[in-house]
Amino acid sequence: MANTKPARGMRDFLPSDVRKRNYVIGIIKTVYESYGFEPLETPAVENIETLTGKYGEEGNQLIFKILKRGEKLDTNAEEKDLSDLALRYDLTVPLARVVANHKNDLPKFFKRYQIQPVWRADRPARGRFREFYQCDVDAIGSSSMIVEAELCAAVSEILTRLGFDSFSINLNHRKILAAILDVSGISIEKHTDALVSLDKISKIGPEKFREELLERGIPQNNIEIFGRFMSEIYSNMSKILNAEEGTETRRGFTETIFKKIAVFIGDHKEGIEGLRQLEAIFNYTNHNKHNYIDIALARGLSYYTGAIFEINVPDLAGSLGGGGRYDGLIGMFGKEQIPACGFSLGLERILVVMEERGMFQKLIDQGKLKLDSADVLVTVWNETSIGESLKLAAELRRENLRVLVYPEADKLGKQFKYADSIKIPFVCVLGESE
Amino acid sequence: MANTKPARGMRDFLPSDVRKRNYVIGIIKTVYESYGFEPLETPAVENIETLTGKYGEEGNQLIFKILKRGEKLDTNAEEKDLSDLALRYDLTVPLARVVANHKNDLPKFFKRYQIQPVWRADRPARGRFREFYQCDVDAIGSSSMIVEAELCAAVSEILTRLGFDSFSINLNHRKILAAILDVSGISIEKHTDALVSLDKISKIGPEKFREELLERGIPQNNIEIFGRFMSEIYSNMSKILNAEEGTETRRGFTETIFKKIAVFIGDHKEGIEGLRQLEAIFNYTNHNKHNYIDIALARGLSYYTGAIFEINVPDLAGSLGGGGRYDGLIGMFGKEQIPACGFSLGLERILVVMEERGMFQKLIDQGKLKLDSADVLVTVWNETSIGESLKLAAELRRENLRVLVYPEADKLGKQFKYADSIKIPFVCVLGESE
Repeated sequence: MANTKPARGMRDFLPSDVRKRNYVIGIIKTVYESYGFEPLETPAVENIETLTGKYGEEGNQLIFKILKRGEKLDTNAEEKDLSDLALRYDLTVPLARVVANHKNDLPKFFKRYQIQPVWRADRPARGRFREFYQCDVDAIGSSSMIVEAELCAAVSEILTRLGFDSFSINLNHRKILAAILDVSGISIEKHTDALVSLDKISKIGPEKFREELLERGIPQNNIEIFGRFMSEIYSNMSKILNAEEGTETRRGFTETIFKKIAVFIGDHKEGIEGLRQLEAIFNYTNHNKHNYIDIALARGLSYYTGAIFEINVPDLAGSLGGGGRYDGLIGMFGKEQIPACGFSLGLERILVVMEERGMFQKLIDQGKLKLDSADVLVTVWNETSIGESLKLAAELRRENLRVLVYPEADKLGKQFKYADSIKIPFVCVLGESE
Repeated sequence: MANTKPARGMRDFLPSDVRKRNYVIGIIKTVYESYGFEPLETPAVENIETLTGKYGEEGNQLIFKILKRGEKLDTNAEEKDLSDLALRYDLTVPLARVVANHKNDLPKFFKRYQIQPVWRADRPARGRFREFYQCDVDAIGSSSMIVEAELCAAVSEILTRLGFDSFSINLNHRKILAAILDVSGISIEKHTDALVSLDKISKIGPEKFREELLERGIPQNNIEIFGRFMSEIYSNMSKILNAEEGTETRRGFTETIFKKIAVFIGDHKEGIEGLRQLEAIFNYTNHNKHNYIDIALARGLSYYTGAIFEINVPDLAGSLGGGGRYDGLIGMFGKEQIPACGFSLGLERILVVMEERGMFQKLIDQGKLKLDSADVLVTVWNETSIGESLKLAAELRRENLRVLVYPEADKLGKQFKYADSIKIPFVCVLGESE
């Protein structure tokens, strides 16, 4: 018997899966479109030199490479000579390539979204696949915080429309973090170590956090300064989390944090710039109730240069997506630096959470999502009345109904049973006129 | 300078391309859904043994194969050992795999559509790409001509909605063709030769057609019988093409052809079955004006076993799609034969024809298709009024408008120029209240 499973780490999506996925993707597209983002699509396959060297050593290992074809293939060659093409690993490098390739056709501010699969030869695990969708949205060409504010607003709108209620968009700024570390006297080389520990502060608490900094070789006196300040900020962050609903209270706590940071970093130029930018985002979004300042947020990727964001929902380890400003990346294929800021939603995680929390069922109950294969089944009485059934079906379709004609002149009972088995709510029986 | 082009034979789709493609795909989906077809999606990457041996020697050569990863790779191995995965080559083999893999979860009649890219290492040429979309629709599990009739009706509806007017769906039946050849005394081994010549009859005319049959080694006396009959049918086919509008006239000519075929094939059992089936399709679709009997239609693929279809538009060489019944294929991964019938639309060709014939412009003029990036641009007066601009944008979005906020506090003239450059029809200026 032939193996009929999909390849390892890949998935078939049966109709109800596709309908759920398309519903979520549809909301994401509609909201991004309403913010003036435009759709872009790039090929699944890229020249291998477009991808190699862009994702670090680990990423390089995970790229699916395509074998050269025909006379081009020399099987005695080394691995690197066997392949000339590779599968897309993310949507950022293709975007950078398109921006460089079309720099005269694209508008000076290019706002694009791209929702397409990517492939990584990762070890499959629960919730980790070798083919998965990325939903990226990026605004290219502007350094204004309008971009950050609109990205946060769009993502809030998407999550709200999908039925999430108590999510948060956590915000921080790379330049504020760098300033705090500088002022604490922590040397540049130790910044990454400090940020890795900081990222865990909400899990391990301030005591463990200080211990870890020591283990990582950060001098005791610097830890004192850094740790004391962070603990203080952290307790103010908790106040926001526990604040009663109401923008004013939360705005007050957030502004207190801004003030404490300002006092701490003093005249650190980059830090002041970061702080002004973060304040601008909160002001532009009118201190939206989903936006939280989270000074412990660091985001792993080294390419962020400004504001950073992450979406969190209660009782979920890990985030539903994140992003930030990365002014040095989009220009990688050209000569000039191009300012850019983006957000990537974790479609597969969103789908898992919505499934686990019964959110699709709620959408079905609200009539927003349909999983059934048709609205009506039209039965077939006998061979000679088939034309009549088809005519009736055509009329119902003109009324915008999805109509399935039972595809054989079977017994009526069988036809009803079939409608039931594929959950068609109505059956339209066409019989003899007597 | 890095190469920023997409890989050979692959394409980037900029926003207006994506919008056109999505418009066409949207119509196809909506119509297929209205006929009770359900969406299916399968991975881009399949196990290599799922694909090899399914597309003939030539197809095998054109499959993009993926290099094994890490310790699995032995570069001294032969080509066949270097790869364990491959890119999807069509949507039929994955469908057959899914049907075998999920035979207990799928309904006994499974009507599915699938619109996804496939990859072929073909030599790129005008209109031929290495990544292109297939739009397949198939009904599995029924032998009734209801399926054929509904497929033809759905495809007619799609083309009509896209703005095609004088297209034709040409219909024929493999069993009728075989019967005509049998009765003409042409041996089974020469059937393919005869069909290849027949496929050209409308181009080369009946005289050249007979010459070619002779060249292909078909005995003179058989050519006489076959050629005379075909010429006769062919002149009747011309009558249909030249018939005035009006179902009755065309029905009459079509029925005349059916009668002539019936007389010619006599008691050829399979031929009679084929003829009954073809008549049923015409009757079930009430001799729809787009359906034409085309006894010269052969369709290249050897797997068709019954009715065959092809879409033609005036002044276009080649077709916009085609299909037919293939009762022996879907069961390839299992033990049982499963009846199936399907249609494949040539999305890339449809897009090219629509572009060349100005059909997208017509859709834009009718307000059915929008290529602009937003409905309104909201200007930004100065840094301090940014919050006001964002608030206004949010209000306009609540009215279901697509709103772009100019992402910098630039001079107003620049903002207008930008709106113009990306074809936003309205600009909403927010100034000082003074």
